[in-house]
Amino acid sequence: MKISLMHGAGGEVMGEVIDLFLKISNTNAGGIGLESLDDGAVIPIGNKQLVFTTDSHVVRPLFFPGGDIGRISVCGTINDVAMMGGKPIALSCGLILEEGFEFDDLSRIIDSMDKALSEENVSLVTGDTKVLEKGALDKIAINTAGIGVADTIIRDNGLMPGDNIIVSGTLGDHGFAVLASREEFDFADQIISDVAPLSGMVQSVLKIGKINAMKDPTRGGFASAINEMAKKSGVMVRIHEEEVPIRSSVRAASQLLGIDPLEVANEGKVVMGVPAEDTEAVLKALRSHRYGRDAAIIGTVTKGKGVIMETTAGGERFIETPIGDPVPRVC
Amino acid sequence: MKISLMHGAGGEVMGEVIDLFLKISNTNAGGIGLESLDDGAVIPIGNKQLVFTTDSHVVRPLFFPGGDIGRISVCGTINDVAMMGGKPIALSCGLILEEGFEFDDLSRIIDSMDKALSEENVSLVTGDTKVLEKGALDKIAINTAGIGVADTIIRDNGLMPGDNIIVSGTLGDHGFAVLASREEFDFADQIISDVAPLSGMVQSVLKIGKINAMKDPTRGGFASAINEMAKKSGVMVRIHEEEVPIRSSVRAASQLLGIDPLEVANEGKVVMGVPAEDTEAVLKALRSHRYGRDAAIIGTVTKGKGVIMETTAGGERFIETPIGDPVPRVC
Repeated sequence: MKISLMHGAGGEVMGEVIDLFLKISNTNAGGIGLESLDDGAVIPIGNKQLVFTTDSHVVRPLFFPGGDIGRISVCGTINDVAMMGGKPIALSCGLILEEGFEFDDLSRIIDSMDKALSEENVSLVTGDTKVLEKGALDKIAINTAGIGVADTIIRDNGLMPGDNIIVSGTLGDHGFAVLASREEFDFADQIISDVAPLSGMVQSVLKIGKINAMKDPTRGGFASAINEMAKKSGVMVRIHEEEVPIRSSVRAASQLLGIDPLEVANEGKVVMGVPAEDTEAVLKALRSHRYGRDAAIIGTVTKGKGVIMETTAGGERFIETPIGDPVPRVC
Repeated sequence: MKISLMHGAGGEVMGEVIDLFLKISNTNAGGIGLESLDDGAVIPIGNKQLVFTTDSHVVRPLFFPGGDIGRISVCGTINDVAMMGGKPIALSCGLILEEGFEFDDLSRIIDSMDKALSEENVSLVTGDTKVLEKGALDKIAINTAGIGVADTIIRDNGLMPGDNIIVSGTLGDHGFAVLASREEFDFADQIISDVAPLSGMVQSVLKIGKINAMKDPTRGGFASAINEMAKKSGVMVRIHEEEVPIRSSVRAASQLLGIDPLEVANEGKVVMGVPAEDTEAVLKALRSHRYGRDAAIIGTVTKGKGVIMETTAGGERFIETPIGDPVPRVC
């Protein structure tokens, strides 16, 4: 068997690679380990709960409306720490470059990393650089790993019947921004990636309300994230289509391309399950933050299983886990 | 300006890339940061000293005598944690694959990672997989980041006049094993990589003696490591050529190829500066460990600067910092 693009697309096929890693003897260092397949691991260090996570970034193009590979490589890892309830402290950076890569582009990328790190007051403390001969890599790949400390650990499996499902803003922006930019569509400059670091916003929410479960809808989009949350939590989720915030430009592109905005990656959004009594406070806290202005309650959690969309037309359909992400190299 | 292979070769040219990272606003999270350019960072977490480090691995061939890219990706990061005095706890793995990569090869590689992790009782707790389209990557790249806890932090800048320089075994094995394997030389099967995880050995030494400075001589080999240690410590190092352990097969290959075994990467060795009074105990502890059987005292630290080789023939020459590593993609 050979590795296919779907093995890296965030959907079900990727499970075949994950299963190889799960055969490793030790996948847990005392807290939450690889076997949980959550956004990051948790490890007790002395009297603290350390969150540890990693992501590699290979997005194309390197520079797109709203961001670039540098910003995404910082935000992706900060957000994975944040999704576990962690306050990120430091990142590592493993850089792989192709011989001939423009030094000025690298400088722009690192400058962009700096800006994203500074937004959340996170340090880049350690790194590594490798250069491959011409042709051995398409330009650049950036890995970051991140550590943070969590007072309250939030899992992706904690949805409870009665919870409201909140998203922190419009869905599909990043996937369509990358796609539009890559294909040079007419509407390319109207769709801006949402790539942003969310730990400040999430930490401010955690101060005022309870979050039962949380995940960032990256590869595979909202459809993948909400199905994973529902399945792990052993609950059903009902989504109200008319409440789902989607930009009109994204909706137009989605109709033109026949790609569901709920199945493409977001890089600056969070999906939360929030108890009814905390919902208004959480929503208010989200909306008061620059990255949560379009936050909305889009559904509810009930007993049962599966994710159902109550459509604007009055019908119902399942939101399925996508096999992958329809946009290759989206992050 | 364009990125050249030398930007990833571990020598002085790499400084141009490192300088870009050093412009980042926050490179230190309260302990030892990127600006120290040591083997890893140290971050105070509660009442503990956390060591945090990363390496990406792109070695060719993927399988070589004595190891493979899986083993090296685990050992490289475990050893960087170990070199800071840290006891490694957990690793992350960021995997990038080329479409079409053989699933069985991936399975072998992950199995090899498991064996190396198990040797040191380290967990692989979090990961990420990306797949690039055919032609966008030469087969596979593996990033690992690692965390550990240090009771005693060891720096690479702590050499003191009067210290003895100890190496934990023969030098040049990994670089020549990779080179010989790649070029299919006649002697290819006689040179075995030393790739090994060293934290157990280093921790056992720390229990019985003092280490003033420590570094693993990876890219750029011993010549690069000892020069960095001497320069950062503000001391001179004198090496006695006849004491430097080099396997006869490595010596033969080195003469044939005109490559200095002191300038190629080791992946299972450590260079230490040890006070005179601790030297015998440290040497004994090293030699009692499977990865330190050939440990030797090869030099001394004095006031001054630079690294001098006292040759077997009775002369003296400087050991210079190599511009890079003569073996591309050695790790």
